[in-house]
Amino acid sequence: MDTKELALQKHAEWRGKIEVVNRVPLETREDLSVAYTPGVAAPCLEIARDPDLSYTYTRRGNLVAIVTDGSAVLGLGNIGGVAGMPVMEGKCALFKAFADVDAFPLCIDSTDVDVIVDTIVHIAGSFGGINLEDIAAPRCFEVERRLKERIDIPVFHDDQHGTAVAVCAALINACRAVGKRIEDVRVVFSGAGAAGISIARLMLRLGVRDIVLCDIDGALYPGKAGMNPAQVGMAARTNPRRVTGSLADALAGADVFVGVSVAGVVSQDMVRSMAPGAVVFSLANPVPEIMPDEALVAGAAIAASGRSDYPNQINNVLVFPGVFRGALDVRARDITEGMMLAAAHAIAGLVGDDLAPDYIIPSPFDERVAPAVAAAVAEEARAEGLARA
Amino acid sequence: MDTKELALQKHAEWRGKIEVVNRVPLETREDLSVAYTPGVAAPCLEIARDPDLSYTYTRRGNLVAIVTDGSAVLGLGNIGGVAGMPVMEGKCALFKAFADVDAFPLCIDSTDVDVIVDTIVHIAGSFGGINLEDIAAPRCFEVERRLKERIDIPVFHDDQHGTAVAVCAALINACRAVGKRIEDVRVVFSGAGAAGISIARLMLRLGVRDIVLCDIDGALYPGKAGMNPAQVGMAARTNPRRVTGSLADALAGADVFVGVSVAGVVSQDMVRSMAPGAVVFSLANPVPEIMPDEALVAGAAIAASGRSDYPNQINNVLVFPGVFRGALDVRARDITEGMMLAAAHAIAGLVGDDLAPDYIIPSPFDERVAPAVAAAVAEEARAEGLARA
Repeated sequence: MDTKELALQKHAEWRGKIEVVNRVPLETREDLSVAYTPGVAAPCLEIARDPDLSYTYTRRGNLVAIVTDGSAVLGLGNIGGVAGMPVMEGKCALFKAFADVDAFPLCIDSTDVDVIVDTIVHIAGSFGGINLEDIAAPRCFEVERRLKERIDIPVFHDDQHGTAVAVCAALINACRAVGKRIEDVRVVFSGAGAAGISIARLMLRLGVRDIVLCDIDGALYPGKAGMNPAQVGMAARTNPRRVTGSLADALAGADVFVGVSVAGVVSQDMVRSMAPGAVVFSLANPVPEIMPDEALVAGAAIAASGRSDYPNQINNVLVFPGVFRGALDVRARDITEGMMLAAAHAIAGLVGDDLAPDYIIPSPFDERVAPAVAAAVAEEARAEGLARA
Repeated sequence: MDTKELALQKHAEWRGKIEVVNRVPLETREDLSVAYTPGVAAPCLEIARDPDLSYTYTRRGNLVAIVTDGSAVLGLGNIGGVAGMPVMEGKCALFKAFADVDAFPLCIDSTDVDVIVDTIVHIAGSFGGINLEDIAAPRCFEVERRLKERIDIPVFHDDQHGTAVAVCAALINACRAVGKRIEDVRVVFSGAGAAGISIARLMLRLGVRDIVLCDIDGALYPGKAGMNPAQVGMAARTNPRRVTGSLADALAGADVFVGVSVAGVVSQDMVRSMAPGAVVFSLANPVPEIMPDEALVAGAAIAASGRSDYPNQINNVLVFPGVFRGALDVRARDITEGMMLAAAHAIAGLVGDDLAPDYIIPSPFDERVAPAVAAAVAEEARAEGLARA
């Protein structure tokens, strides 16, 4: 049976990958009088007096909503929120399995930014954090920005920031492995959507100075026609050499390739044109921009992808469970770029002396990852004055 | 330690009365490839093709949202949604414990009908049913009516309908115990809010012909000043003898009292003025309109209340778990008055030959209740053509 058939069969058997269970005894009248009426009035009144006590008396402090509009689910495009729910449930299951975070999936039946934002704002008091998922660019930027203005719990768009953290972790170790400094590398992107822009932004924060973002029409530069506002903003902050050609043009002499686009857009010749010690991150799923083994044959020093059947799998599951674990542990007001960078360094740091071209990033199943990320994120939240507990 | 202190201590220990857990193995790359990427794309695409398959491939078919605006929490008034969450979590825990229904609590940060309705409509695709909770009257009527128009999953306002079903179950057996026919009894209410109106409406459907609803100003009758639209509607359908006085006036000669108002508004003299074989349901919580023992001393044949420390506890927990279990089992489009009545008869029927003045309704812990209610509700949904599975 292939993966597709097996997945359908298993999903039909499971009838849901998550479940809401009861944590309290409810077997006697006494039990009911404590967990429900009349006893429950006491915590209600305490929270009415001080809303912060919702973190003490309810599940809120361990609870994240996974919210989608279904407009960019995996590589499937806009299939609608209800159809995206198997992915959201999967994410919830991963949150619980990897970091004991309770996560609950919600789909919104509209791709209108106002509707998405208002809906989340109105129910935000039920949660300790919001993980946005599979919302198409550029809408996702606006949704996230407005939510951060309107609610004081952490908001994190995993497709952007989870990917950014994982890629930056991989970059830190890739540079170490090939003996280059972050400040000196030229990085070229294929893909200037949510993930590409977010990775580039975090790389700037990490210290990378020379980034060229390419979309299907080639390099982004200030004044280029047809860019969305997020791309305009990034064009102004990147491309210091004012590269204007195609992806192939941009890659010549580059040190690092980051693909967050579509299968097969990078040839072996393009890899050969890169600088010595080339690093190739081909993250298109399930088929990368160039297969890792092909990149290596063409002379890349390091190849990474999103695939579990090759070494150096760059996977968001390294990131989101620990990031929210850490944010919830200190009741962080926000998840900042500083906290994301702390997470990237924590992930990279776990590789340590075992660093090798085929081991620049820990396995998704490395049990050290989520606690290390959580600790780093919590510490940075405290350092930034964003911790409330 | 009193109940209040114990409840605070336990709630602080529990840190949430519910938990979202993982139902699937996530320990190997193979596990991940089935439950998450790339396998998860298959159920997503199936649901995109046929949205009904969300009931097969996700948790939706067993999942109910418990939604409040926090405007009428217990007897505490408008304390806000976040402060109401301990009650919502308690409800969720009861759903799971009594009927294996997954229920998830959501609070909305607004008491505006448009906001409440729109918010629920936008996330309804995540759930198999909506249980409204602790929303003040008359807003709750409008919220429920509009939701039923706009979404095709069951919507049930427990404060109205759960109470109505439980009271009708008790009435069926009380009439049997005192040897009166439903069609012949005069029923007088204290309280014309959400619960009172909903109980009266279901009693009419049950066959009661003579109902007088009283609020703080006495009996409702057509043309009375100051009534909300729901009260105007009920005034037109009740009070066939055009009673116009106080609650005391209305109770003289009445067969059944239903109190859904406030402590102490019924005196022993008022009970003495009722017809022989008087039935007194004093449901104000935690202190009833008249204590059951005082009603019995004053000559009532049967007394019931919401209290667990007296016989005949009329409690919604007899109702909502089984009602949603049945509705979900057949994927009912709606929860109708017919289904509610079926639930009431199912609950009443369990008492059987053990009927006695102090046993007109099963215990909330009677394990036969939820399955019996579920079966009756499912059967009625099928009979009404509302079952989709």
